[in-house]
Amino acid sequence: MRRLFLVAVLAAVPLFAASQEAPRPTRVVVQVSEADPARWNLVLNNVKNLQDDLGADKVTIEIVAYGPGIGMLKFDAPTNSRVSDAIKSGVAVQACENTMRNQKLVRADMHPGVSYVPAGVVQIIRRQQEGWAYLRP
Amino acid sequence: MRRLFLVAVLAAVPLFAASQEAPRPTRVVVQVSEADPARWNLVLNNVKNLQDDLGADKVTIEIVAYGPGIGMLKFDAPTNSRVSDAIKSGVAVQACENTMRNQKLVRADMHPGVSYVPAGVVQIIRRQQEGWAYLRP
Amino acid sequence: MRRLFLVAVLAAVPLFAASQEAPRPTRVVVQVSEADPARWNLVLNNVKNLQDDLGADKVTIEIVAYGPGIGMLKFDAPTNSRVSDAIKSGVAVQACENTMRNQKLVRADMHPGVSYVPAGVVQIIRRQQEGWAYLRP
Repeated sequence: MRRLFLVAVLAAVPLFAASQEAPRPTRVVVQVSEADPARWNLVLNNVKNLQDDLGADKVTIEIVAYGPGIGMLKFDAPTNSRVSDAIKSGVAVQACENTMRNQKLVRADMHPGVSYVPAGVVQIIRRQQEGWAYLRP
Repeated sequence: MRRLFLVAVLAAVPLFAASQEAPRPTRVVVQVSEADPARWNLVLNNVKNLQDDLGADKVTIEIVAYGPGIGMLKFDAPTNSRVSDAIKSGVAVQACENTMRNQKLVRADMHPGVSYVPAGVVQIIRRQQEGWAYLRP
Repeated sequence: MRRLFLVAVLAAVPLFAASQEAPRPTRVVVQVSEADPARWNLVLNNVKNLQDDLGADKVTIEIVAYGPGIGMLKFDAPTNSRVSDAIKSGVAVQACENTMRNQKLVRADMHPGVSYVPAGVVQIIRRQQEGWAYLRP
């Protein structure tokens, strides 16, 4: 009988736990895959609006630049100071190493604050599988 | 013993409830973030195809225009009559107030049938978190 | 008492089953809706990177071409041999029949390896509802 009670309680626990969880934080992965500085500025505007509206501490944002979008993260990109601001505000800005290899870019060519992922596209898919929202400005 | 039975049944209820739920309605948030009338027409074609194929009463659609895409919702846009048709058919067509402020647009500049959201990008993310599909034509 | 035990165990089974399931396979629906061969090559690069990084047998990929993107799947598209390679590697490459009708295209105009969906945009939405990740390169 004690064992039976234990089984029943064990079965119930995950359900109660789920219903008492805190609201899931807002998490957004933002794709940059175009070579257009106007689009890069739009991305950075979007990120700022998300932070302003939701609170910078209540939203987790990753920018992933790959393919023709990698230019946004080069050290001499016209959006360079805005990328610095985004990083300072807590945004993870990630460059695709597959793209860098194809375009013969090395880390010295890039904005010093970025981080690196082996494949931008894999990162974007993985984040969606983990429940992140996807934004392709 | 009666209490034990109750615990076991309570544990089981949510599982049965989940399996008997009605199929979730199809809900789609459609992004417009480009200044290109050909793209606006593509968006409106996409919305119409969703309605034709799924049944206009079985799909809930929101169009969110922001950034360079806001032009689609100005009263003098070339897609104006098609936007009216979409609204008449039940689509919520939403303009981003952040973008309007940046571009010095007021409500008198806009298609009279649109509704307004404080930040288009926040709306798009929130809808995804609520389980809506995302379409970026 | 035996019946009670059964109820408790039945209640518990789905929970244990869920926690012991194999990790859900990665499934990705990739949208092509632009008339730009450079974008078509980016799509095909993205698909290849997903296969290389995740293992071609561990990721299920569908490419859906519609609207101005349908050109990628015409038999004389510049990306033709790469589309063949993608199909050989297990990618489902799908042309939108709505678009084909609008553009007066018939199956004889298309790459012989593609498959067909009645409405590309419905396919993209349905896949997201089934838990697939969405990629719009």
